[in-house]
Amino acid sequence: MKPQDDLLKKIIGHSKEYGFVYPSSDIYDGLSATYDYAPYGVELKNNLRAYWWAAMVKLNENIVGLDSAIFMHPTTWKASGHVDAFNDPLIDNKDSKKRYRADVLIEEHAEKYEVKIRKDIDKAVKRFGDDFDEIQFRATNPNVLRNQEKIDDINDRYKAAMDKDDLTAVKELIEDLGIADPETGSKNWTDVRQFNLMFKTELGSVAGESSIIYLRPETAQGIFVNFLNVQKSSRMKIPFGIAQTGKAFRNEIIARQFIFRMREFEQMEMQFFVKPGTELEWYEKWKEARIKWHKALGLGDENYRFHDHVKLAHYANAACDIEFDFPMGFKELEGIHSRTDFDLKAHEKHSGKKLQYFDPEDKESYVPYVVETSIGLDRLFLATLTAAYVEEELEDGSNRLVLKIPHALAPVKATVLPLIKRDGLPEKAHEIMDMLKFDFNCQYDEKDSIGKRYRRQDAIGTPYCITVDHETLEDNMVTIRERDTMTQERVAISDLTRIIGEKVSMNTLLRKLV
Amino acid sequence: MKPQDDLLKKIIGHSKEYGFVYPSSDIYDGLSATYDYAPYGVELKNNLRAYWWAAMVKLNENIVGLDSAIFMHPTTWKASGHVDAFNDPLIDNKDSKKRYRADVLIEEHAEKYEVKIRKDIDKAVKRFGDDFDEIQFRATNPNVLRNQEKIDDINDRYKAAMDKDDLTAVKELIEDLGIADPETGSKNWTDVRQFNLMFKTELGSVAGESSIIYLRPETAQGIFVNFLNVQKSSRMKIPFGIAQTGKAFRNEIIARQFIFRMREFEQMEMQFFVKPGTELEWYEKWKEARIKWHKALGLGDENYRFHDHVKLAHYANAACDIEFDFPMGFKELEGIHSRTDFDLKAHEKHSGKKLQYFDPEDKESYVPYVVETSIGLDRLFLATLTAAYVEEELEDGSNRLVLKIPHALAPVKATVLPLIKRDGLPEKAHEIMDMLKFDFNCQYDEKDSIGKRYRRQDAIGTPYCITVDHETLEDNMVTIRERDTMTQERVAISDLTRIIGEKVSMNTLLRKLV
Repeated sequence: MKPQDDLLKKIIGHSKEYGFVYPSSDIYDGLSATYDYAPYGVELKNNLRAYWWAAMVKLNENIVGLDSAIFMHPTTWKASGHVDAFNDPLIDNKDSKKRYRADVLIEEHAEKYEVKIRKDIDKAVKRFGDDFDEIQFRATNPNVLRNQEKIDDINDRYKAAMDKDDLTAVKELIEDLGIADPETGSKNWTDVRQFNLMFKTELGSVAGESSIIYLRPETAQGIFVNFLNVQKSSRMKIPFGIAQTGKAFRNEIIARQFIFRMREFEQMEMQFFVKPGTELEWYEKWKEARIKWHKALGLGDENYRFHDHVKLAHYANAACDIEFDFPMGFKELEGIHSRTDFDLKAHEKHSGKKLQYFDPEDKESYVPYVVETSIGLDRLFLATLTAAYVEEELEDGSNRLVLKIPHALAPVKATVLPLIKRDGLPEKAHEIMDMLKFDFNCQYDEKDSIGKRYRRQDAIGTPYCITVDHETLEDNMVTIRERDTMTQERVAISDLTRIIGEKVSMNTLLRKLV
Repeated sequence: MKPQDDLLKKIIGHSKEYGFVYPSSDIYDGLSATYDYAPYGVELKNNLRAYWWAAMVKLNENIVGLDSAIFMHPTTWKASGHVDAFNDPLIDNKDSKKRYRADVLIEEHAEKYEVKIRKDIDKAVKRFGDDFDEIQFRATNPNVLRNQEKIDDINDRYKAAMDKDDLTAVKELIEDLGIADPETGSKNWTDVRQFNLMFKTELGSVAGESSIIYLRPETAQGIFVNFLNVQKSSRMKIPFGIAQTGKAFRNEIIARQFIFRMREFEQMEMQFFVKPGTELEWYEKWKEARIKWHKALGLGDENYRFHDHVKLAHYANAACDIEFDFPMGFKELEGIHSRTDFDLKAHEKHSGKKLQYFDPEDKESYVPYVVETSIGLDRLFLATLTAAYVEEELEDGSNRLVLKIPHALAPVKATVLPLIKRDGLPEKAHEIMDMLKFDFNCQYDEKDSIGKRYRRQDAIGTPYCITVDHETLEDNMVTIRERDTMTQERVAISDLTRIIGEKVSMNTLLRKLV
């Protein structure tokens, strides 16, 4: 088992055992690629969402929120291009009855040549050591060149076929390459066909009214169709942004990697409307603002990198991802896209309504350009658990598993523990909890030894444990123990709200952003 | 126009103009019975949800949260009874091609007799004045008795037909009563057929995997199927509760009355698991707790009443609604139901998994009973606007429209207004806003006269307006104006966070609950 698989498996197991994420419909043996957020998971997810919302809407005078419905008029998805082009090319193996994404089969085939190239490079590195120049080697070594040519040829043929919507050519490519069913080795393939990723359902039941609608595959379009309503009712001037969080749905062929790729997932999107010509400047500003936001979380600066898109989507004139070092390696966490006026223009065309903004300074009307920041909340959740999951050896030689979730995001902020279950300590502990619970998510735990209770709180990432002992009854002082340092301090009960408040407030994160 | 229709229309208009609720997909002329929450609406909705969540999860040691997926294993809905019995009986008129709910046609027909009875009563009231005894009159007046008999007969026949699933008898009843298409008068009806209210979609695309799934019609089942996972991972002891908020979907034939009945809506449900035999005691406790929660909101105690269900659903042994006085009259806002062990037993049967709890004190295992509290977030939103929408005549004879939203729930807590747009006042105002924005949702407004700006803030329900004038630059004092009383006070900038904080904190509501 590779160490990263190991970490993902550990996180999945931990999530179920300690109440972060369960497989959905578990008693019915689960529903493929669907998960439920468990008691601590829902708190963490809510906190992550609240951090995003506050950073966008509270801190920025020129960004307002929105919560548009999942159901939208079906023409929305015609205009956005999703009805016609939001497809995966599928192919079935006639013998095994397994279905595959044609593009994935071809990509995996091409990767075999890249593996060969890497082997040649590794050999050369061993031979030449520090003198090795990979770029030079790739440009001159005959083996590498031959393999690279094969990769290029495959990619060119696939791209040419798809550009012409020629699915027969895609099938021919698969056959020419001799690609076999990865599970059975059979090469007996059906034709390739397009499969739309939107979920369909039928709305309404009054005769004549019934119509096909889609579960939205992205929240962005809910913002675009509301652009003028928001601008007018919020009296916004360009540049301004609209932020929204909510569920989106994609009928993924291969949904996998825990909550990284689900069929039902939550997006946090902000569309920033700007004057045409200024969009690339704003694109750069938002790249900077978003990476700052991520780093303020404290999951480790080294876990982030930008990936600029070389091949741009049809609607974009600049685009990049912020990638995070997940257990499966660096993968997309957030996308930042300069979407031009593609969407607003498309909605103008399909709705027959003007979606123009009158600029009171320039005295001219225009369709704004849009810069989008779009992050997957479930992926952010997985990123947080990935960075937080730590196995430590303690000074006494024992081990602990601790979730070092940023304090402000921890599901439970403080747990109150009576040292023993009698002598009035439980009552005193409850008294403290009744004081704290208005300001913080708190727990009470009286079962097992203090050591065991600390381990349980470590496992769910509680930053502070407050222990009530016999002396507490005398002096109204308690022992407060911090999760990461495990240091303990004796403090007055009356100081608890302030001490904890200063450390767990969302403002500790937000103040890093300005 | 009746005054209540008038109020609903005013609220709908105000919601769109001032950014609370827009018709969904407005540029495509809307999508039936679907709405989008606009910038101020989403803040109010989030605050209402946060108040519910805090009251349930933060204040109660024995209630934990959950966020289960909208997609669930399809057998869930077989077990819950929704696949077989979550239907409306529909009938089409062959001439007009209009479709109707058969039960609504029959109910509206029966109501005609009730209208006659009310007329007789009104006449008698006029005649007898204070001596009139309605109960006595209903029991003895021959006209009333004859009409009541007709009502009873209609209801009995309808109930008997539905109990036997005899849709032919329902059609016969419609024909016997001579019910005509309300729009065209035609009596040319099709057969009655059952229409399931769940939205269907197809999941997955891997050959053989594809299957019909449903959009959940309620969030409750996500709690039931997770009952043991939650109990174990959160180490809960009975009695304990699981709280969840989230979208649910119902393909309503007649969806109407703004956001009161939508096809996509949000529920806030808490299922409380108790020892069998104690459920009615808990049912009473939750009735009390929930009405207290509503009244703490401050929308007016007189706007609430209990409605006990006489006819219980098949799964319940006690049930009531909390009704609110909406613009359309008293209607269901929240349901409180003693659901017995119906759901857990049904899931045991369909999943083959035990859903029992081992009681460590009684040393016995049992399937718990469930008491449910279920509230519609969209209805709560409408209730809040209904109570908050106030047209006032001011002392100077002018009018104002003010949304008296409870301070803690207001979308914007404070707006900073420079008296004029120069002399450094805008800069000073921004300075104050930059201080406040970490703790409160704030706005900045410099356009138009102070009076106009107050009116705008009244219209979105902002509790505090902070005016920066020339003296502010000297003494660091500002004028703070309260929305409802319109009183103004001169206070130090350094006191603003405390002054506003004390009034708008969610804890002002939560502390009323303990």
